[in-house]
Amino acid sequence: MYPPSIQKLIDQFSKFPTVGPRTATRFVFYLMRRSKEEIKDLIKSIIDLKKSVKICSFCFNLFESLDKGEENLCQICQNPTRDRSLLCLVEKEADLISIEKTKKYNGLYFVLGGTVGTLKKKDIKKLRIKELAERIKKPKKFGILDSSFKEIIIATNPTTEGEATALYLERALKLFGRHPPATLKITRLGRGLPVGGELEYADEETLSSALESRK
Amino acid sequence: MYPPSIQKLIDQFSKFPTVGPRTATRFVFYLMRRSKEEIKDLIKSIIDLKKSVKICSFCFNLFESLDKGEENLCQICQNPTRDRSLLCLVEKEADLISIEKTKKYNGLYFVLGGTVGTLKKKDIKKLRIKELAERIKKPKKFGILDSSFKEIIIATNPTTEGEATALYLERALKLFGRHPPATLKITRLGRGLPVGGELEYADEETLSSALESRK
Amino acid sequence: MYPPSIQKLIDQFSKFPTVGPRTATRFVFYLMRRSKEEIKDLIKSIIDLKKSVKICSFCFNLFESLDKGEENLCQICQNPTRDRSLLCLVEKEADLISIEKTKKYNGLYFVLGGTVGTLKKKDIKKLRIKELAERIKKPKKFGILDSSFKEIIIATNPTTEGEATALYLERALKLFGRHPPATLKITRLGRGLPVGGELEYADEETLSSALESRK
Amino acid sequence: MYPPSIQKLIDQFSKFPTVGPRTATRFVFYLMRRSKEEIKDLIKSIIDLKKSVKICSFCFNLFESLDKGEENLCQICQNPTRDRSLLCLVEKEADLISIEKTKKYNGLYFVLGGTVGTLKKKDIKKLRIKELAERIKKPKKFGILDSSFKEIIIATNPTTEGEATALYLERALKLFGRHPPATLKITRLGRGLPVGGELEYADEETLSSALESRK
Repeated sequence: MYPPSIQKLIDQFSKFPTVGPRTATRFVFYLMRRSKEEIKDLIKSIIDLKKSVKICSFCFNLFESLDKGEENLCQICQNPTRDRSLLCLVEKEADLISIEKTKKYNGLYFVLGGTVGTLKKKDIKKLRIKELAERIKKPKKFGILDSSFKEIIIATNPTTEGEATALYLERALKLFGRHPPATLKITRLGRGLPVGGELEYADEETLSSALESRK
Repeated sequence: MYPPSIQKLIDQFSKFPTVGPRTATRFVFYLMRRSKEEIKDLIKSIIDLKKSVKICSFCFNLFESLDKGEENLCQICQNPTRDRSLLCLVEKEADLISIEKTKKYNGLYFVLGGTVGTLKKKDIKKLRIKELAERIKKPKKFGILDSSFKEIIIATNPTTEGEATALYLERALKLFGRHPPATLKITRLGRGLPVGGELEYADEETLSSALESRK
Repeated sequence: MYPPSIQKLIDQFSKFPTVGPRTATRFVFYLMRRSKEEIKDLIKSIIDLKKSVKICSFCFNLFESLDKGEENLCQICQNPTRDRSLLCLVEKEADLISIEKTKKYNGLYFVLGGTVGTLKKKDIKKLRIKELAERIKKPKKFGILDSSFKEIIIATNPTTEGEATALYLERALKLFGRHPPATLKITRLGRGLPVGGELEYADEETLSSALESRK
Repeated sequence: MYPPSIQKLIDQFSKFPTVGPRTATRFVFYLMRRSKEEIKDLIKSIIDLKKSVKICSFCFNLFESLDKGEENLCQICQNPTRDRSLLCLVEKEADLISIEKTKKYNGLYFVLGGTVGTLKKKDIKKLRIKELAERIKKPKKFGILDSSFKEIIIATNPTTEGEATALYLERALKLFGRHPPATLKITRLGRGLPVGGELEYADEETLSSALESRK
């Protein structure tokens, strides 16, 4: 129904997360109604994004390289006041940002890049397991000079996929932990009732955790 | 539009929780299509409910008095194997049942009968505060012979209303606690990420609690 | 978890339309908090419903028999000012009431008692087809003295089930129509955009009808 | 929280229809994970959109100018087999496409560019009223050579805004209609029950229309 140049952009927007063909169509009509200046500005932002945003060589978080220099570590990994004995494993960048917002965590991160639904090889390949092992064993090699991890916090989501991933990580961490591995503490985020939650609708596992961690 | 006898029942059903006039109408049409036997059965159940269900004289939980006798304590309060040094304060019966389902709590309960949105007198009157004070001070008087509470768990919901209620209760408990009050431990349910929760969408308070209670 | 007399009523309320076990539980707790007077009143309403509400011998609509007399026709069928050459076939009582509310229809009704998803025998038995045939052929026998139907309006819902039912009825009406059947006009409700509808989200059939019936 | 180049793009995506900051953030992370080729492709599509898409000089519909030539009419307005005695007024491009999909309309269109909530001057200015008047009076001037409109179909949405707009248009059309204006028929889309609609939930106006347009 639509001219090819409209349809092509609809197809491209349809691949964006949460966007279906109808919303993609609205995006295209929205763009057509924008001025040339606004379009130029949007395109510039997309180009800038690809140019100035780098992936941290230690934690795989995204960061903006301000001086276009050679630095390869993100602001968190570079920060000498962060506690380099703590490493928090998160599924994705957005989870890292959620934890930073709490201002209650001062250690380093590692972005796993996904979760595993099953323990099949092709699933596990999606995680940065080898990269994690290297960074725990030789943090210096990746730019973190004075580190010696004492605690690894597995901060995957308490969803089915996140739980499977956490179980896999716990097992893997024991294999490639530091020597002696016993000194490396492995922890998980606490379970309980969230703000706004209701006992009446809480599942038994959540409520059990809330009871056990009462204080 | 409807004949008076239909309209009257619609009005009565409309007062049921979650029911509006349209659903109430569907209830009435549903009843009209039932057989005389089924209607008799429903009415009998409603009458039985009022006859055999009693309110526990200690905890205000509802229970069924099986032998139509004189007992005034619910099955939980009567049960000699429950830990009578623990008292869990819940907003309503449904919360008590949620906690029982976890099978992780073996103490007694007290049903507050509501929550307070503000600390205004007329709001606070909705809670069974005086009744709670009497039962903590003299459990024997209400049928709990060998009790001596060591911990009061305030298990209100982590909602705005539940939090306001918990704060009020904490303050009140300090005033009417046992002698010396210091021996009476007052606790709250633990906060954290619920099963199925996601870090990306968690509020900062919930995530902070999850980090702090990691293990 | 619940005492038997509570659980039984929960089970009975769970059979009400749109009600699940959780809502049923809330109904029971709601009833327990009502006074004896209120409960008596509710039970009386249910008994009255079964006593005074009758099914019209012509149209199968429900009506209230005010004088406890012998009348068998509802207020609509009894009303001499209604146009007895028009018969509107509806799926259920609530549809009849919706049409009455428009005040644009002055004919008689016939409540089919359901819809058919398929044209299988056991499905078709749910409709009052034989009863409809008898009433169209011999309205006098069922209390409508001076009728001679000229138009049958099939007012089933424009849903998949309603459409299947309408197709079945059209075919059936041709078989048992009056003599000569050609004089009996069979119509369907008009399709189009509803109040509040939007062209952008309308399906093609609805929009085609709206275009065709433009005026 | 985010580096400036990320934040800027989040802000730009947040202005897209239906997109909030959270979805905009997901868009940015999505783009960061795309290859350079994919990003290039997306940017090219956006540039092509602005380059090749033109606004039709008669109907204001968007179209793709394939030969980069001088044509100013869209494919519908150019098509000699379309019925040039019919003009359908739609609020926006998406409505035009919905009508085209029905394949039941073969006339021309005019895109009004909006709706009016009130009849205030600043609202009415949003509609292309002057442009509409010119095109009805002198279609030749805008590239439609052999036209002589006999029917104007006001195809605004049956929403409150669409209705207000339709009333305003009806009045305006009478003022600037052809001579003698009486020969210009003005119609509206038909109302009725949409596919999938239910009598029980239909408003009285929709149901009245459905009854009146029965056939």
